[in-house]
Amino acid sequence: MTEYTCKRIILLSLPKPDLKDNTGDADRLVGALKKKSGCENVFIDLDLLRKIPALLREYDYTVRCIVCRERKGLSLLGLTAGEEKRIAAGLAVDLGTTRVVLRLLDLASGDVLGESAFDNPQISVAPDILARIHFSDREGGLEKLQQMVIGQLNRSLSELCASCGLSPEDVYLLALAGNTTMTHLFMGITPHWMIREPYIPAVNNPGFLRTSELGIAAAAHARIFIFPNVGSYFGGDLLAGILFSGMNQMEDTAILVDVGTNAEVILGNKDWLVACAGAAGPALESGVARMGMMAGPGVIDSVEVDRESREFRFHTIDNLPPKGMCGSGIIDLAAHLFLSGMMDIRGRLVPEKCGRHLTEKDGMPFIVVVPADKSASGDDLGMSQADIDSLIRSKAAMYTILRTLTRTVGMEPEELRKFYVAGTFGSFIKPRSAIAIGMIPDLPPESYKPLGNSSLGGAALALMTEDILKESEKIRNRITYIELNVNQELMLRFSAAKFLPHTDPGRFPSVKVWG
Amino acid sequence: MTEYTCKRIILLSLPKPDLKDNTGDADRLVGALKKKSGCENVFIDLDLLRKIPALLREYDYTVRCIVCRERKGLSLLGLTAGEEKRIAAGLAVDLGTTRVVLRLLDLASGDVLGESAFDNPQISVAPDILARIHFSDREGGLEKLQQMVIGQLNRSLSELCASCGLSPEDVYLLALAGNTTMTHLFMGITPHWMIREPYIPAVNNPGFLRTSELGIAAAAHARIFIFPNVGSYFGGDLLAGILFSGMNQMEDTAILVDVGTNAEVILGNKDWLVACAGAAGPALESGVARMGMMAGPGVIDSVEVDRESREFRFHTIDNLPPKGMCGSGIIDLAAHLFLSGMMDIRGRLVPEKCGRHLTEKDGMPFIVVVPADKSASGDDLGMSQADIDSLIRSKAAMYTILRTLTRTVGMEPEELRKFYVAGTFGSFIKPRSAIAIGMIPDLPPESYKPLGNSSLGGAALALMTEDILKESEKIRNRITYIELNVNQELMLRFSAAKFLPHTDPGRFPSVKVWG
Repeated sequence: MTEYTCKRIILLSLPKPDLKDNTGDADRLVGALKKKSGCENVFIDLDLLRKIPALLREYDYTVRCIVCRERKGLSLLGLTAGEEKRIAAGLAVDLGTTRVVLRLLDLASGDVLGESAFDNPQISVAPDILARIHFSDREGGLEKLQQMVIGQLNRSLSELCASCGLSPEDVYLLALAGNTTMTHLFMGITPHWMIREPYIPAVNNPGFLRTSELGIAAAAHARIFIFPNVGSYFGGDLLAGILFSGMNQMEDTAILVDVGTNAEVILGNKDWLVACAGAAGPALESGVARMGMMAGPGVIDSVEVDRESREFRFHTIDNLPPKGMCGSGIIDLAAHLFLSGMMDIRGRLVPEKCGRHLTEKDGMPFIVVVPADKSASGDDLGMSQADIDSLIRSKAAMYTILRTLTRTVGMEPEELRKFYVAGTFGSFIKPRSAIAIGMIPDLPPESYKPLGNSSLGGAALALMTEDILKESEKIRNRITYIELNVNQELMLRFSAAKFLPHTDPGRFPSVKVWG
Repeated sequence: MTEYTCKRIILLSLPKPDLKDNTGDADRLVGALKKKSGCENVFIDLDLLRKIPALLREYDYTVRCIVCRERKGLSLLGLTAGEEKRIAAGLAVDLGTTRVVLRLLDLASGDVLGESAFDNPQISVAPDILARIHFSDREGGLEKLQQMVIGQLNRSLSELCASCGLSPEDVYLLALAGNTTMTHLFMGITPHWMIREPYIPAVNNPGFLRTSELGIAAAAHARIFIFPNVGSYFGGDLLAGILFSGMNQMEDTAILVDVGTNAEVILGNKDWLVACAGAAGPALESGVARMGMMAGPGVIDSVEVDRESREFRFHTIDNLPPKGMCGSGIIDLAAHLFLSGMMDIRGRLVPEKCGRHLTEKDGMPFIVVVPADKSASGDDLGMSQADIDSLIRSKAAMYTILRTLTRTVGMEPEELRKFYVAGTFGSFIKPRSAIAIGMIPDLPPESYKPLGNSSLGGAALALMTEDILKESEKIRNRITYIELNVNQELMLRFSAAKFLPHTDPGRFPSVKVWG
């Protein structure tokens, strides 16, 4: 008989009842599951319990059990014939404020079966977190928000399953990572108090819930694991990211940066974790994301200045005519302007170095990468001095956060061994360019590791982690959350970081201006 | 603040949240409950969790929690203001095949608030256990049987609560003791396999269930504890009886006899318990119960023979004209016939001693206690030789069971220290009379203790026992169930016990024939 390495699926050949062993059917199954799993307590939902006598006889006492380890003990999620070959699936959910991503896995192997995504339908009634919290305070608002997202989840899950030849009844376990507000709304729990002093969530540790309690259309006795949050401003999505990075199990101290609506930074190793979130988020958003555009066909994602010709060379996605620039292109451009001497250490464009690439727009210097007659949009593509100033504030904020956080444990950012960057931002920026402008510390390139959607990755990992509750609580309990106080010291660090790459160039030995 | 001695109710004054302690509302409550109860895990149903933030603020963080300790940990059953004076009630249920008895308790004090009873409505579709198991096999039969009993339970509970100025929403915890079949039907679990070799129940240890899962109208998050069974023929009702007797905690070895449809006998002390059930049941039923009648107004419940006049003296319930005789009257009569010499040691009526009380009916000797012209029924009241023979077989069967069971542990029945008799049978028979005919061993009268409805008593005790699951499992796991094999040794013991009081009168030194 096959032995699964994953503890989600347990194969059992039960001793058949006889006159000398009149243990009840359910107790027979529970006893065998206890023995095989090592769990002291095993639970079977009443509705499933009712089916056990007939199922055991139908399967001739040889069964495949799909289980999960909850806080209370092992729960039986489903029971099939021992030789059943149909996949028992799990679903990882990244519940974002704007986008929800699903990944379907085979619970036996961990293999990815498929992925899909949808815009969070709550956007249609309330665009951002604050608006949703206010909407949830209305009569029926909370229920409506919950139903919107769960309704769409059910439809998407059904389609995703169908595309893999499965049905939602084959999905026995879900794991969901989201920020604290999204998680509360998903469970139909009011986030009302999270935006009112002292800003506390209703629940930090929801643990496992029955999907039936939430109206999720999956297997009848499926469970959903909801990642815990540290507080209103540090949600389960980040915790999932930590799990996914593995930094919580490392000897060396690592850092994880997640740039989304906020910039969240977590520093730590297997012994401790400190985290902060903050102001850098909006700054980076306005500095990079808003100025640039979403990556897509025809968008410039890479720029450099040729050392010989001092001309710009760039790359567009799908090699289509250029129509704009995304975050990675903008950081590349800033880095190469600086390295080529076209921009000085204070971020001023230097006319004599920029030559004919420099023009003026709305009374302000503007560096042109693609002139209007060669761009697909019909506009000059490049950056204004104001864009550059904004980018420099952002990169200074980022470096300041990194330095402030590492300083709380007596380290400098340059002493880090691993630097994880989560999100699409992390997947596309080139570390070399970000280092050149002093946005991130001057570490060897191999230290940087983009994680992609770390929240989804963590949720998928949760599906395959035997005692995810214990693992996630271990991470949660180890996190020290630090409020970044805007004091004089921080402002001094911020000012020092507003130079390129820094007022202290010794911090960035690899950055060499060649122009 | 009042401290309840009962661990079902916990008063808490929670630290209020502030900027330095942003623990979530639910986690704050859970943390305090863990500390106060010593339980490692505390669980709150999702629906209740949703209300926690508003309730904590409404009650200003001072709350009364109604809890129970399930297998998984402590469950929160309800939450009120700390100063709430409204009673939090519990309901004990004795789920009999023919009769269901309810007892409402104050969970804080254990005080009895009220009692009520109803005939098990399942009787109307299937009179006995076997018929019900067959009925449950029909399409929709199981559901119908379940709904019948739960429907009537809900109505009776509602009336019982109203009579105490309460509502079913004030009932947070139920405990139910019934035989294995009744318990299965109550949970909607098929008893089908219990009457088919190898006769195994679907579940031995149901533990705690949510009342909402069973359709019981009580507090929204109430639980019901279902007493575990040892097997198809040894149900939770007996286990409740053991708990109620307290024999499982005694140094001295005691015996518990429950005469119902079966005669169930349990022998043991704090270290071990052995049990058997069997053939004596039907024999006793036919011997005593069927021949006699239910106790009620005008029924003879006590008989003696006057030493001087050799006339019968009797007592009727409520002192009404005699219309029949119940079990205790019949045993009294047999004892006094024997002690007065009107009946010999083989149970034959002795004409010269009976005198004019002896007549003949249907060609068979008949001893008249009340002649037809003085009875309310218009019939001679008394016993025929056939009735006596039947009674003697019953008493011999009883003594044989007692002796066989005690012999399995190397004891004689006469070495017992405590003799518990459960059921109405036990409440009414006089030990002196039962000893005189050799039905029960010749122990000092103070050794006998009638328990009344021990199943209900055990259920009520369960409501007030902090960790009833552990207690009941401890009892369950300690029981060795013995099949009484009808072998030659047993038959010899049975034959020896068919004399009055026994072939070995040395076993009954207190029994002295005076006539």
